Formats: sequence, C-alpha cells, structure tokens
Amino acid sequence: MVKVKELYRNAQDYEGQSVRLSGWIRTSRVSKSFGFIELNDGGFFKNAQIVFDESLENFQEVAKYHIATAITVEGTVVYTPDAKQPFEIKASEILLEGASSSDFPLQKKRHTFEYLRTIAHLRPRGNTYSAVFRVRSLAAFAIHKFFQERGFVYVHTPIITGSDAEGAGEMFHVSTLDPKNPPLTEAGDVDYTEDFFGKMANLTVSGQLNAEAYAMAFKDVYTFGPTFRAENSNTARHAAEFWMIEPEIAFADLKDNMKLAEDMLKYVISYVMEEAPEEMAFFNQFVDKTLLERLNFIVNSEFKRVTYTEAVELLEKSGKKFEYPVKWGSDLQTEHERYLTEEIFKMPIFVTDYPKEIKAFYMRQNEDGKTVAAMDCLVPGVGEIIGGSQREERMDVLMDRIKELGLHEEDYWWYLELRKYGGTKHAGYGLGFERLIMYITGMTNIRDVIPFPRTTGNAEF
Amino acid sequence: MVKVKELYRNAQDYEGQSVRLSGWIRTSRVSKSFGFIELNDGGFFKNAQIVFDESLENFQEVAKYHIATAITVEGTVVYTPDAKQPFEIKASEILLEGASSSDFPLQKKRHTFEYLRTIAHLRPRGNTYSAVFRVRSLAAFAIHKFFQERGFVYVHTPIITGSDAEGAGEMFHVSTLDPKNPPLTEAGDVDYTEDFFGKMANLTVSGQLNAEAYAMAFKDVYTFGPTFRAENSNTARHAAEFWMIEPEIAFADLKDNMKLAEDMLKYVISYVMEEAPEEMAFFNQFVDKTLLERLNFIVNSEFKRVTYTEAVELLEKSGKKFEYPVKWGSDLQTEHERYLTEEIFKMPIFVTDYPKEIKAFYMRQNEDGKTVAAMDCLVPGVGEIIGGSQREERMDVLMDRIKELGLHEEDYWWYLELRKYGGTKHAGYGLGFERLIMYITGMTNIRDVIPFPRTTGNAEF
Repeated sequence: MVKVKELYRNAQDYEGQSVRLSGWIRTSRVSKSFGFIELNDGGFFKNAQIVFDESLENFQEVAKYHIATAITVEGTVVYTPDAKQPFEIKASEILLEGASSSDFPLQKKRHTFEYLRTIAHLRPRGNTYSAVFRVRSLAAFAIHKFFQERGFVYVHTPIITGSDAEGAGEMFHVSTLDPKNPPLTEAGDVDYTEDFFGKMANLTVSGQLNAEAYAMAFKDVYTFGPTFRAENSNTARHAAEFWMIEPEIAFADLKDNMKLAEDMLKYVISYVMEEAPEEMAFFNQFVDKTLLERLNFIVNSEFKRVTYTEAVELLEKSGKKFEYPVKWGSDLQTEHERYLTEEIFKMPIFVTDYPKEIKAFYMRQNEDGKTVAAMDCLVPGVGEIIGGSQREERMDVLMDRIKELGLHEEDYWWYLELRKYGGTKHAGYGLGFERLIMYITGMTNIRDVIPFPRTTGNAEF
Repeated sequence: MVKVKELYRNAQDYEGQSVRLSGWIRTSRVSKSFGFIELNDGGFFKNAQIVFDESLENFQEVAKYHIATAITVEGTVVYTPDAKQPFEIKASEILLEGASSSDFPLQKKRHTFEYLRTIAHLRPRGNTYSAVFRVRSLAAFAIHKFFQERGFVYVHTPIITGSDAEGAGEMFHVSTLDPKNPPLTEAGDVDYTEDFFGKMANLTVSGQLNAEAYAMAFKDVYTFGPTFRAENSNTARHAAEFWMIEPEIAFADLKDNMKLAEDMLKYVISYVMEEAPEEMAFFNQFVDKTLLERLNFIVNSEFKRVTYTEAVELLEKSGKKFEYPVKWGSDLQTEHERYLTEEIFKMPIFVTDYPKEIKAFYMRQNEDGKTVAAMDCLVPGVGEIIGGSQREERMDVLMDRIKELGLHEEDYWWYLELRKYGGTKHAGYGLGFERLIMYITGMTNIRDVIPFPRTTGNAEF
C-alpha cells in the first residue's frame, strides 16, 4: 500500500511502477469511455488523480460511485512534472471498499461553516477541516516535542477537582447523585457526603496549582489537558471545553517565563509550517491572505516587553477613541490589546506587571506594593494568547493575600505547604490551545478548530 | 546553570570546571567542619553530591538547612571515576532559594505507599514517585511519537458528552443546574432543557465512536485523553478518572489492529527503557526484581495469537482449578487471562474472536454468526492490557445488532451515517494508560501511578 503523500514527495521515483492505494472519492468525472477520480487517502491534504477507462472490468459500476465512496485502486504511476499534480495513476483495477450514497452532504459546492458544524462527523472530509485538524494534531505534537526536548515532565493534573480553589471561572458540577431526589442533610442542603467522591466535585478550570506541586519536584513541568468553563458566553472565542497547556518552571522568574513562552510559540509555529506546507498554503489562500506573512514575522521577531503602566500611558497618549476608556487599574480590553500589538508595536508583545487588584491571588507581588509579576502575551490579529506570572513563593505574603481576598485558607493547605518546604521562586503560564490553533490557521470561530465543540446549548455528537 | 543529568553523562568533561546548579536538598550530613549534601535538581533521578566546609562564609547556616530546602550551589566539579557517583561538587558558595521546615514528611525512613498518597503534593520528591512520574511522562511522549511518526492524526474527542451511547460503563453527570432545586418539567422530571447544554450531559467513557468519524477522514487517527467511570469499585486497578489511548485505523482489519498494538507496546517500552535507565534500574531493584527481564522479553517476543475458542479449550484441558469455571460463552476472568499468558504461553498473547454476547454492539460479526472480530492483548504479570476489535462497517448488520440489543437507533444517527458514506472496514483498540504505566514500572496500585488520583470517596488536592 503506497501513501499519496509519498507519491507527491517522490513522484519521479515511482514513474511506471505498479502501486496499490486506498482512499475516498473526493470528486469523480466520467465520460462515456473514461473517467477521473480525485482520491484522498486520509494521510495527505491533496488528492491523487486516478484515471480509468473501459478496459476496467467494472467500468460501468465505478462510473456510478458516489462521492465519499471508499475504494482500493491498483494501477501504474505516470509521472507528470508539468501538470498541476506531479503524477496520476492509471488504474488497472478499482475495488469497492465501502459504498456511499448520492446524498453525501459534502458535494462540490461551498457550505457555510455554520452548516458544517451540524455535520461535525463528516466535515473533516472536506479541505478546510481536514487542514484544520491535521494542523491541530501537529501543533499538539510540537508542544510535547518542545517541552520534552527541554527535559520537562508532562503531568496529568486532575480533571475532576474536589476544590473550587482554582478561582479561574465558573465550574461544572460532577455528580452521581440522583438529580431529581438528591439526599439532603438535616439542614436541607444536598448531602455531598453521599456523592461519589464524598464531597462536591467540579470540572477543573486550570491545572496550575497541581502543576506547581510537581514543579517543586521536577523543576520543569507542563500540563496539556482539557479544562472547562461553565460560562454562558456565546462568542466566537469561548468554548465550555477546551485544551490548555500550562508549563510551570522552578528557579525561574518572570523573564525566564517570557523567554519560554516566546520560544515555545516560535517552535510550534515553525514546526507546523514545516510539516504542513500544503495546509498552510490553503489557509493563506482561502482563509486569511496575510497568514503566512504574519506567522513568518512572528517566528523572526523578537517579542517586545512593556509594563502595564507604560502600556496604559501609550494608549492614553495615542489619542485613539476606545469603546472602553483606558485607565490605570482597569483590565485591558481586547480593543486595547489589539491596538497595542497591531498599531503601536506592530509585533507580539509581553505586557507585564499588572495592578494586583485585577490579577489572581497567587501572583507574586512586586516591591511597589501595587503590581504583580504577571505577563500577558499579545499577538497581532488575536490579542491575548498567553497569560502567566511569577508565583508568590513567600508564605507570609501569600497568606496575607488569601486573607485579604476572603479566600478560605483551609482550601489551600497543600498549596501553602509547597511554600513551607523548599518553595523556591517559580513561574508559569497558560496557553489556550484552541486560541493557538485559531492563530495558526486563521480560523475565526473556536467551534471550527475543535472536532466536536461543546458550547452553551451544544453537546452534540 | 548546569544540569545534574549532564554532569552524570559527561562528568569527565567537567573536571575542574566551575559550575552553578540549583535544586533541593535530599539529604544532608554535617560534621563540625565539613558537610555533604545530596542535591536533586528535579531534572534527573539521581542526586549530585555537594561537599562543603568551613571555608563557606555561611557554613553554620547551611549546616542547619532542613531536607527539601531549595538552594543554588556554585562550585568546582571533581571527577570521581572510582566512586559510586562519577563526580562531586566542591562548593564555593551556597545560596538559600527557599527554606524548608524540620517537619518535612519525606525523611529518610521508608513510608508506606498508603501514607504517601495522603501527601500527593509532596510525594514526587521521593525516589519512587519521582521515577514513576518521569516514566509516565516519557511513556506519554513515546505514544505520541509512535503514532505521529506513522502519520496518525491526534484527535481530541469530547470529554463532556451529550449521549450515553458509548456503552462502556457508568457515567458521571455534568451539570450547572442548582443541585438542590433543579427546574422540573410538568411531569416532575428534571428539566434538562434548562441545563448548560440544553440536555443531560455526562463525562465520556470512551472516545471511540468519535474517533471512528475521524478515521473515515484521516484513515489513521488516535485519541489520548482522560476518560471516566463512575463505578464503585474500590480495587487496586480501578480509578474514576484515567487516561486512555484509542487508535482507530481505516482500510484495516483485526490483524492490522493486532500488529499495530504489538508494535506500539514494544515501541513505548523500548523508549522508556532507553530514556530512563536509572529509573528502570530502581524499579527492578526495589519494586519488582523480574521487571527488566519481563520487559526485555516482551520487546523481543513475537506475541502469540489464539482464538477465544482455542483459549477456552486450552484452559479446560489444563486441569487447573479456577475460582470461576471456564465455559465457552462466559467472559474470561483475570485468573484465566493470567493463566493463559503466564502458564500456557509464557508470553504476551492476543485472544481473538470472542462470543458476540459478551462484547460490544459495534464489533464486527464473524461469518460463524456466533463470534465477533474482537481482540484482547494479555501480558504476563497483569492480564488484559489492551482491548479492541474490528468495527462493524456493514450498515444492515450494525442496525440489526442495535435493535437486537434494544439500543436506541436515534442515539446513533451520526455513527450510522459513517457506514452510509464510504464506511470502509476499520478497526481500533483502547489502551488504559495507567495499566501500561503499572506494567512498565511494576507498581501494583493505580493510585500510585496517577499524580492526584480520583477514586471512590477520594478527590483530594
């Protein structure tokens, strides 16, 4: 069995050779005595052109095969260096592997992304989604490769969490209690001691706190797993279930953290451009004409660093009218972020040292008493793609902050113990994997980069 | 900053050189005028021996550092080819990075695994768990590497599922409804149209059905993600949350499936033995003295194939008294599986073609009308480690089976459509990742190979 990718890459070597390949019919044109099939074997973005004629025993049947029919072809490779495709295959035999029906929905005509979402089980058979999901796979591997080559330990942090201490957003409850008649305590509350885990459980919003524990053992670790937000935000950038990468590095500060994030982004983008040139050319042609230029620019730029305070000054001085006014102390909105990275710097930037009031309790307080050692990475075309910080390793400062915010100290007993036993300086960040895929492919709706997306009101397939 | 692993691998090159390294104190022995620190830098299983004496400005303080203290050492490498460790470091400076307390629980004395589970945030700092979780990380990467090198597409199948059609076990409910006062329909049932997804949702027990959809687009795909079982089975081999690998291959039958499984197991085991020789030697010495012998044997054996019917005959003929009697038509118990692989074959085996009554609806029916094209991979010391099958690609046969079993056809509309549109023969299997890690490390409790395990009554950390 030969692979179409192999034939594309080394067509000349196969000239005149007899080969066998299997795949699905993408298109078929048949005249009275001969026909052409565009065959996709699943392993490569492009199709192999199959030529067949009446010498085929089953010519009449093959002529009637519908789009999406699975076949196996035996034939001879004809090297065609001047044609659009570097080869075609003259079929000597075509075997039916799995019939298709005339109502296969992905016919030649273009469909809207909205419609295609309703056939999520079939959409990867078309060009756009075939490209998106191969890129997604390659990018996932590139992330593992990047961290493993640097000696990071991959940690599977828990998906079900018995704490709501992560503080990153609304959570989904996980339960095996009878939802209609849950057991109640004497006080009339749901009695979670009767539940599967003996307590209330939720789906994780972040593996960071757990990853920190492992960074104190392995120095450099990362997570890569699903995370969840039960937020009713029906936007193009939010999903209820998405994958996140969270590295955590010990004996490291905010600068090391930014360096790691920058290296990682460049590595993953380069890897995908190298391994999926056909897919990337497709996106550049049909989805976003500036895509390759933008990605090449990122790979070859040194990301700029700017403090939040400087960023606010730059935005104020810009004279630009924003929907949300800029003011020291307020969080940056997407419009501000994009203006900074697209108009002012015209390149990826890290904004650092945000006011502590708008950031999480675990971020390390700076000497000024007002800001924390946080960093967000903003990129042209998207805005924020990474958020991270140096973590507060000083037990007393962390404890004060937990009390100040009215959090429950007892929920953090083990997290605090990490500071008690050799808690050295450390830092980390979170990268939303789907945001990265949107950025790399130019796709603008998160529903189009997740195989079977889960969003408000939608858990089909 | 030099890495301890690098010093171990190339100690001679560093002789006399001045280096700087950071890590945590594993042990410390101090006399009046000099001391030894075993320093672990997190990146390597073994420690660097740090030698220091009164020439150190802060000798008195360093002498008092507790176990787990984080320090940075500057010093000179002394090559020691005849000693237990190939080098030691004569410290010229030791900086405190993070203090530790005298009650750090991982002192020299041995602890039970049970106790260590109660300090899951600290246990990776000891030898056993440091080895387990580095091996887990390497094995995870090896799995990705294996499939990616073969052109497989990694698919993130959904974690939250709106169907209970997977049929592999008890499920956890996922909801954002008020658990105490859920909205009710007029009939008095919970009104899931009010829930986050507009319907009842659960945590997935398998990504297989979704992966099949992608195999019909990409030919060769795999999943690697968390799966869940809400089963109240408090055993050493069951967790409520665990990771699973599920490849799915098109234009492939049961033989191709077994070949893939065998190749994968050998690849992953070889990779780990090569990349973590120190950890593997540790397991062989302290956890299971036959481990390396067993793993080497597996890597170098050709797995045997035997049908279920033959296996039952062999078991019957063996004369062995089993707790559960062997009978054609009943599922094989762990005792039967282990007897087959350990006593009869003395090597890994695939048992194929099980009675259809004891296997899932989607498995391909054999011509005999009684059995299905299923395969389980059994290995000495563990029993079943992989379960798979060729899938029923024939629409009519699949539909009959769904009806026969009283399943709801409408739950499977899209799964059935995969058969309608070019549904070619295909196959796949599931590998429980934790089972594999137990097998590779010799650890016998699943709680000891998951960073923060979730089991009945336990969702701590």
